[in-house]
Amino acid sequence: VHKQNLVALQKKLDELHPADVAYILESLPLNDRLLVWDLVKAERDGEILLEVSDAVRETLIASMDSEELFAAAENLDTDEIADLAPDLPHDVMQDLLQSLDAQNRAQLQSALGYPEGTVGALMDFDMVTIREDISLEVVLRYLRRVGELPDQTDKLFVIDRDKKLIGVLPLKRLLLHDPDVSVAAVMVDDPITLHADEEADQAAQAFERYDLVSAPVIDKDEQLIGRVTVDAVVDFIREESDSDMLSMAGFREEEDLFATVWKSVQNRWAWLAINLVTAFIASRVIGLFEGTIQQLVALAALMPIIAGIGGNSGNQTITMIVRALAFGQIHPGNARKLLLKEVGVSLLNGVVWGAVVGVFAYILYNNIALGFVMTGAMILNLLLAAVMGVMIPLLMHKMGRDPAVGSSVLITAITDSGGFFIFLGLATLFLL
Amino acid sequence: VHKQNLVALQKKLDELHPADVAYILESLPLNDRLLVWDLVKAERDGEILLEVSDAVRETLIASMDSEELFAAAENLDTDEIADLAPDLPHDVMQDLLQSLDAQNRAQLQSALGYPEGTVGALMDFDMVTIREDISLEVVLRYLRRVGELPDQTDKLFVIDRDKKLIGVLPLKRLLLHDPDVSVAAVMVDDPITLHADEEADQAAQAFERYDLVSAPVIDKDEQLIGRVTVDAVVDFIREESDSDMLSMAGFREEEDLFATVWKSVQNRWAWLAINLVTAFIASRVIGLFEGTIQQLVALAALMPIIAGIGGNSGNQTITMIVRALAFGQIHPGNARKLLLKEVGVSLLNGVVWGAVVGVFAYILYNNIALGFVMTGAMILNLLLAAVMGVMIPLLMHKMGRDPAVGSSVLITAITDSGGFFIFLGLATLFLL
Repeated sequence: VHKQNLVALQKKLDELHPADVAYILESLPLNDRLLVWDLVKAERDGEILLEVSDAVRETLIASMDSEELFAAAENLDTDEIADLAPDLPHDVMQDLLQSLDAQNRAQLQSALGYPEGTVGALMDFDMVTIREDISLEVVLRYLRRVGELPDQTDKLFVIDRDKKLIGVLPLKRLLLHDPDVSVAAVMVDDPITLHADEEADQAAQAFERYDLVSAPVIDKDEQLIGRVTVDAVVDFIREESDSDMLSMAGFREEEDLFATVWKSVQNRWAWLAINLVTAFIASRVIGLFEGTIQQLVALAALMPIIAGIGGNSGNQTITMIVRALAFGQIHPGNARKLLLKEVGVSLLNGVVWGAVVGVFAYILYNNIALGFVMTGAMILNLLLAAVMGVMIPLLMHKMGRDPAVGSSVLITAITDSGGFFIFLGLATLFLL
Repeated sequence: VHKQNLVALQKKLDELHPADVAYILESLPLNDRLLVWDLVKAERDGEILLEVSDAVRETLIASMDSEELFAAAENLDTDEIADLAPDLPHDVMQDLLQSLDAQNRAQLQSALGYPEGTVGALMDFDMVTIREDISLEVVLRYLRRVGELPDQTDKLFVIDRDKKLIGVLPLKRLLLHDPDVSVAAVMVDDPITLHADEEADQAAQAFERYDLVSAPVIDKDEQLIGRVTVDAVVDFIREESDSDMLSMAGFREEEDLFATVWKSVQNRWAWLAINLVTAFIASRVIGLFEGTIQQLVALAALMPIIAGIGGNSGNQTITMIVRALAFGQIHPGNARKLLLKEVGVSLLNGVVWGAVVGVFAYILYNNIALGFVMTGAMILNLLLAAVMGVMIPLLMHKMGRDPAVGSSVLITAITDSGGFFIFLGLATLFLL
């Protein structure tokens, strides 16, 4: 690239929103990415690091020395520093903590204390607090004097002397009511509140249901400690669904599109290893029946059909149940009803598709008994898939584990090995 | 249930937020659901119908007659009626259109014109518009006189005589600036705008990147026609990720947890049928090699391993590419680079896991040539998976189709049939 072009590019970058710069960085192969990163003004480094994906952030941070990292982070809010913290070297974090005043240091330390996936990790500290005994006029004058209002502020928080949250004042009410009335007269005194150690998913559901823009976070003494805003919730929802998709496909973590081959292999090998184990087991199940296959080699060609359809049907059931569990819609009272429904669905599917594969087998091999064995095996494997598809996620949920992770692998393993066993077992009993 | 309890339940329902009532309805089996639905006050029916999932909404609407539906819908905003429209009987929609005044009828007709998945379908008409030549004081007085501000209003829209959008006035600026200055002096004159026929996903990305609470929607003449708010975007994002998950598992549409067996079967059969076809093809591929299997029955037990790992690896690649396409991160310039990376990953995986399965086969069957055939087949099938995993979504994208739908089925079909063909083909060549 010519030097002239670099200057033009730099100017262009300066005009872009940090999120747009982040997007460009994510779309570039590593070498080009670091070239562009060098062109970004140092004082913007921090806000851009916040916007890029975790995998890309790692590559950018790896290219910076401690001083650059300190400079990038020191302009950020404490909750933002906390978001970067897992990727920052220990000495940079120490320097940052020392550079903060007492209040900010306390905030940063409290933000660092909340694990990912909690409300505390989504929280920021940009809240405007007021007292209940002043008039709206005073509030308006106070805001004009301060001259700044944090982004995504749709309400002010009303606290008492002990920092206890006693209500919220929506900007809407501040604007619409007579300036002479007091805050106490127009505030909402039973606002929706969040707790810092709640699951972030709970907060997301509250934002979704009640169409919130921001919500106060309180501790167990009802003291106001921060707020959550809808932009943090939107990012959280997107990341959640993205990471669900990645973990279902067997990635350990998010992968940089331009990661090295070696890094990608590390990110993906665990899943392949697990599947190898389940494939070995299925292979040994078939091994048990080698004598049967030797006598009727058609079985080898037909057996993947039984296993495959069972896997698909089981995955439908399990998706349904995992989803209902996530929405909190399953309880002991209706679990039996659901099981009966899924068994019914798979019986009907088993009879219909079992008949289709039975006729297929009969036509191909001109062996009517083989057709009946196919039909019977299909029905039994779909029943197995339905029962396991309901029970696996319910058991995982009961044991306090996330039923979304790994249940698809498990059901496929069961319908594969189970399908081979059922089909070859029936064949051994009835065809030899 | 006793009558007394019903009264208590009714009272409880009246106090709940519509979204909470919707949640309860979704968690109940059909009979109980309709019982509770009857207890809900008629004037709340409309807002609750908006909150329930599509599948549950169908069951509720089926239990209502035309008059009840009309009464439920007539209290709603025009954009909300448009959301319900696909589920309402034709005569109810006609009556609703006739009951509206000219302006609202025009709004409803325009809202009905936008297909699902466009910005127009997310849009509402609750926007407050002002002129640029008045002072902030006048704006404040105007708002107080009207006495109402739509939910999720974080900005007012500034339009000229021709309804053309010339800027937005964030409430923040209205609050913080001297009331004597004019709107023109403090408004944002290059706001982020959306177009009604843009894809909703574009709007969602804009909200996410720029942390918006609301955004104006303009037509091709730059006239303001509506707005999109973050709560609609949050619902859209959730529904999108939910429907991705369901379609990946092979549901035709969202399924009511308590749907009848017959309805569930209809919702799921298409996927099973497609998989049956691909399974038949794979079965015929094996059928080609029955002579080979007859001579070396170990092949029957080992072949699912090759196919299974190929499918997993291919699905990893395809997920990566589909995701990058969704974020717009792939262009002709880097497609080749990505293909090379995926080929590299699968070569490395193929050598490592191929060696593992080769040793496994050798130990089990004490046949060193069989071990080498396993290793070779594994490497080749993983390469096939990588190449197809990159090419299938890119081709689907180029043909204007959604690469997320069906590409997983396709890659699994290819790695199954391909894996059987490669493994049994190599075995025929080198082992017999």
